[in-house]
Amino acid sequence: MVTRVGILTGGGDAPGLNAVIRAFVKFATREYGWEVVGVEDAFNGLMESPRRLQILTPVTCRGLLHRGGTVLGTTNRGDPFAWQERDGSISDRSQELADAVRDEGLAGLVCIGGDGSQRIALRLMQEMDIPVIGVPKTIDNDLSATDCTFGFQSAVDIATDALDRLHTTAESHERVLFLEVMGRDTGHIALTAGIAGGADIILIPEIPWDPARLADKIRRRRSSGRPFSVVVVAEGALPISANGLSDTERKARLKAAGGAGAIAMAELEGKVDHEMRLCVLGHLQRGGSPVPFDRLLATRFGACAVELVAQGRWGEMVALQSGSVDGVPLEEAAITRFVDLSGNLMRTARAVDVEFGG
Amino acid sequence: MVTRVGILTGGGDAPGLNAVIRAFVKFATREYGWEVVGVEDAFNGLMESPRRLQILTPVTCRGLLHRGGTVLGTTNRGDPFAWQERDGSISDRSQELADAVRDEGLAGLVCIGGDGSQRIALRLMQEMDIPVIGVPKTIDNDLSATDCTFGFQSAVDIATDALDRLHTTAESHERVLFLEVMGRDTGHIALTAGIAGGADIILIPEIPWDPARLADKIRRRRSSGRPFSVVVVAEGALPISANGLSDTERKARLKAAGGAGAIAMAELEGKVDHEMRLCVLGHLQRGGSPVPFDRLLATRFGACAVELVAQGRWGEMVALQSGSVDGVPLEEAAITRFVDLSGNLMRTARAVDVEFGG
Amino acid sequence: MVTRVGILTGGGDAPGLNAVIRAFVKFATREYGWEVVGVEDAFNGLMESPRRLQILTPVTCRGLLHRGGTVLGTTNRGDPFAWQERDGSISDRSQELADAVRDEGLAGLVCIGGDGSQRIALRLMQEMDIPVIGVPKTIDNDLSATDCTFGFQSAVDIATDALDRLHTTAESHERVLFLEVMGRDTGHIALTAGIAGGADIILIPEIPWDPARLADKIRRRRSSGRPFSVVVVAEGALPISANGLSDTERKARLKAAGGAGAIAMAELEGKVDHEMRLCVLGHLQRGGSPVPFDRLLATRFGACAVELVAQGRWGEMVALQSGSVDGVPLEEAAITRFVDLSGNLMRTARAVDVEFGG
Amino acid sequence: MVTRVGILTGGGDAPGLNAVIRAFVKFATREYGWEVVGVEDAFNGLMESPRRLQILTPVTCRGLLHRGGTVLGTTNRGDPFAWQERDGSISDRSQELADAVRDEGLAGLVCIGGDGSQRIALRLMQEMDIPVIGVPKTIDNDLSATDCTFGFQSAVDIATDALDRLHTTAESHERVLFLEVMGRDTGHIALTAGIAGGADIILIPEIPWDPARLADKIRRRRSSGRPFSVVVVAEGALPISANGLSDTERKARLKAAGGAGAIAMAELEGKVDHEMRLCVLGHLQRGGSPVPFDRLLATRFGACAVELVAQGRWGEMVALQSGSVDGVPLEEAAITRFVDLSGNLMRTARAVDVEFGG
Repeated sequence: MVTRVGILTGGGDAPGLNAVIRAFVKFATREYGWEVVGVEDAFNGLMESPRRLQILTPVTCRGLLHRGGTVLGTTNRGDPFAWQERDGSISDRSQELADAVRDEGLAGLVCIGGDGSQRIALRLMQEMDIPVIGVPKTIDNDLSATDCTFGFQSAVDIATDALDRLHTTAESHERVLFLEVMGRDTGHIALTAGIAGGADIILIPEIPWDPARLADKIRRRRSSGRPFSVVVVAEGALPISANGLSDTERKARLKAAGGAGAIAMAELEGKVDHEMRLCVLGHLQRGGSPVPFDRLLATRFGACAVELVAQGRWGEMVALQSGSVDGVPLEEAAITRFVDLSGNLMRTARAVDVEFGG
Repeated sequence: MVTRVGILTGGGDAPGLNAVIRAFVKFATREYGWEVVGVEDAFNGLMESPRRLQILTPVTCRGLLHRGGTVLGTTNRGDPFAWQERDGSISDRSQELADAVRDEGLAGLVCIGGDGSQRIALRLMQEMDIPVIGVPKTIDNDLSATDCTFGFQSAVDIATDALDRLHTTAESHERVLFLEVMGRDTGHIALTAGIAGGADIILIPEIPWDPARLADKIRRRRSSGRPFSVVVVAEGALPISANGLSDTERKARLKAAGGAGAIAMAELEGKVDHEMRLCVLGHLQRGGSPVPFDRLLATRFGACAVELVAQGRWGEMVALQSGSVDGVPLEEAAITRFVDLSGNLMRTARAVDVEFGG
Repeated sequence: MVTRVGILTGGGDAPGLNAVIRAFVKFATREYGWEVVGVEDAFNGLMESPRRLQILTPVTCRGLLHRGGTVLGTTNRGDPFAWQERDGSISDRSQELADAVRDEGLAGLVCIGGDGSQRIALRLMQEMDIPVIGVPKTIDNDLSATDCTFGFQSAVDIATDALDRLHTTAESHERVLFLEVMGRDTGHIALTAGIAGGADIILIPEIPWDPARLADKIRRRRSSGRPFSVVVVAEGALPISANGLSDTERKARLKAAGGAGAIAMAELEGKVDHEMRLCVLGHLQRGGSPVPFDRLLATRFGACAVELVAQGRWGEMVALQSGSVDGVPLEEAAITRFVDLSGNLMRTARAVDVEFGG
Repeated sequence: MVTRVGILTGGGDAPGLNAVIRAFVKFATREYGWEVVGVEDAFNGLMESPRRLQILTPVTCRGLLHRGGTVLGTTNRGDPFAWQERDGSISDRSQELADAVRDEGLAGLVCIGGDGSQRIALRLMQEMDIPVIGVPKTIDNDLSATDCTFGFQSAVDIATDALDRLHTTAESHERVLFLEVMGRDTGHIALTAGIAGGADIILIPEIPWDPARLADKIRRRRSSGRPFSVVVVAEGALPISANGLSDTERKARLKAAGGAGAIAMAELEGKVDHEMRLCVLGHLQRGGSPVPFDRLLATRFGACAVELVAQGRWGEMVALQSGSVDGVPLEEAAITRFVDLSGNLMRTARAVDVEFGG
């Protein structure tokens, strides 16, 4: 009897999802003869009636290597343990998922997704006895267990390209231009793109920033013949005045102000006499074809997932560590990696005179 | 005595400004032996004391062909006829400009700029007897006198690239995604990028749009197996409910709502049951290296400006007509070209099933 | 009974072929209810047994707008009037093609292809009474009847990008770098990309070039502080020593020398003392996703082809003239457009000091 | 007295050289107050009379972050220990270099260059007592001491983009297309770009390849409905028939055949019945703006070089190891890193069914 393995994508879009799927399918079918069952829209495809599943083959995966998005669809709604019914009530539907997995004869589920999806996957394994393998996906690259995640470099490239564009306009018009990039909890995209794009100021969630220091920096630049500045703002970066706020209060403040970029611009209003403008990159960072770096990493993750399944290493998650891709305990998916404030990269940023405001 | 010619850039940034300058300087110095005087920050460089001028030579113009922005700086403030003093009062300082032009021994001014700058240039010629040549610059490509302006294709490429990115995310998440692009009065960027990027709905200022028709289109797509849609919104596109509003009222409505994209999203709220998201491209469309199409066009404009000066055709403006670049009366800079609603391009858009909402 | 229309792609690959197909199919099926039959590999799909045809629908055309190549396949072998049999002999198989067209109940054939394909299409109409509509395709943009063809701008962008790259290396190493681009008979790509990419020397088939003039230019640059040069060479550009050669002899000379770029480099050997290097772009110019300019033009061509069929204007070819896309007599597909040596573009090139060697 | 430090670039061009220089200058001048002296054309600027040196400041380094090439110029000729005189004779001029370094009051030399340049630097330190710091530069990424070198990812991106383009043409025309990429001794670019670009066959110097296996693979693809193939060839990859040849003989064979790509195509001639075409990327891989990944890495290298100088760690070379940039002994610059044939990346390649021919 042919082994059947399920695969699904959960959480936000990230460039490289399709490349993981393609590599998994190519390797699993040709080398092991498994049947790969794609589950649509994260776990939902297994929980709805009728089920929404597609048999994936090397033929259906043609052209997926460089295609953005995910052919399986994705959603960050639909936790089987806390399923939202049509009437708004929440109920535990994990048993139905477990039944469906057995009913379909799936040896296990390969879950490509963020920390939310991996937490669900872990519970499915521990509580419902569903064998799972995790493939981490976070465009923010903020996962402790892996040196890098796919999608991150694509997002950095888009943000850097935007910085290049804003630079010419900032310089021509002698303005201060703000670019808000992704990063609710961590500043990896902002820091990396900021250095690569030659930003003058980088604001990250890890460093509460002091408006006075930013204004200083902008004025210093003007007096040294650079009457313009470019500021990168991670979407979770808040000024020192937010110190002590709870997580909920921080979110509320961000929402009320229209985002971290808007807050930064408002805080500088009156402190510098440049015209200021804000660009919010938003979803542009998530879509489109993955850069070659991410295509390679995603392919490696997909191939490794097959090896983990073949070796029966259920409960593990694919990760890149010191140049090699291998499995680590799925529990590690929950550990966030923050920007190391005394690390190598921060030192580099300060070396080229980036101001962090704190 | 060496002929001296002034050159300046006014109005918003546009990819190709530097390429115009480079071509003008290379041609003017090598072929005619003129001295080219770059005036900084539009007319301001001639009106401030001390004057801010730079002698431009082929050596100082190296590398400018593909560089975004303008090395001369630009501004859309500083009309010499309505100069804003530090105390906020307005005064006519055109005589000082005329004096400066003569004092510097400039045979004339080459003004690269939008309709605002060209209007000023025309008055300078008619009222103050300053010889001027215009080089049109509008990223919106909405000038009747010329088949195309530089910067437009670069903006279209950026917008189309954004549409490609949004498409993958819209599809993966089954969302309706909105992209707001430039175009306060005309929809050329929205229409061109919309077709090139495969948008489902395109909203332009020339067509007041009916929210019901948009909702229809989105629902029709869903029922034909495309449960997502991508909408391009020009920044001046308003719904039919704005019909009859004055220009000032339209602007006020746009400002209050946070832009045309926000209005479109709000109008659809409740009419469709997709998640919706908005991206505003903003200044990203203005900056960065010009695409080859714009580098060529800008180079042609710069070279033609030299020929107009050499032939003493002051009061003319460079324009592309039927494949040739030549001079037209500067007065024509004031005539806006709107999207031809029964034209070839609109027919194409409707052929591939684009909905305009009206 | 449903109208059936055939569509095919012939000759070399060009970015935009799929976009033409998509626009034709979307418009024809939705607006007119026709059935569109894709013929594989130019005319071959109708002449082989079994026939290779695919019903094209808006669903099968999803994602084609920005996809390079052609989903129908293409070939520049297989002239039905001079069909090459397996034993190498040539026979007229046009009657079989005509029979197949009738047998399939095709109202006519839309032929997307170069001058070779259009010549065949015209003969099919004139001699075999097969209704045809032509859609011109030449990446070289050398067709008199249309102001522009799709694929050209994509090729120009690739060539310009290559020039940008070569510039930095030429400058760092003080070399003379040659880039060979497409253009067997005409120099449009070389001229356009050459200006956009800031080439110092551009060699085109229309101008036999004198090696001494090139060497002069390179030496003049060195003595003015630019000890490097970048040379664009169209693949059919030959030196003055080839004047008087027949077309066959020219081809033989190009082949023997390994291409026009190699000839140019050899002719300069010993005349300048720079290191020299050659890059041949080759097929890279034909492949990949079309730039937005070409996506739009291709979409317009496809939509116009539907209108021509609908109006029964068989024997016409789609063309862009003065901003509008409409039909022209198919006979015009045979008229080559050469670079206008006294035209606007050449004047621009000379204005920015490009040397043509003649 | 102000500390003066020399900096130079040697060997072939690589995207990121200018970013190293910029970071070094920004950090060294602002933080330490050193005067940075740029030496032109590798060591030559110190050995010629008059010397060719430029004082580098943050102002002169503006805009360098994303600029390709090197503002200092480079060359791989001019070993001070084996200097080629005008009459062709070789002499040791290292003493003159040492004298020049002292005469200019340079505390030491920061040498950005390949293994050749680093070997010279090491001898200069050991034999002539000139303090040196190395910054490794190899686009081939084949240095044992560092996990990655700048320029590599840029080259991979260009090669992958070329593969994407060739794919569409290969598919449309049912051809076998070859892409020759850099890699005389190692296959890192070929392997990385090959996986990222979805190549079917990858030929690298580390694996002598068997033509019969390639033909097999191509035929297998045809019979499974993929009548085209894309082959990446590193410029030093040779077939098994070259086994046992000396290094000189291998080079001779490559030269005689016109490169590794030409050899591959010739070996398959007659074994498969597809049309075949070859593209040689050549210098396009070296030029142009560095991708963000390389801008960041180059900036880190430049900043670290300052720290090594500041700490007096002469004789060390900057290197990236496990995510941190630090100094390693300069001797390690000589150790080549080959593709690990049983490593993670090769396993990935085989998982997605890449054929290596051996």
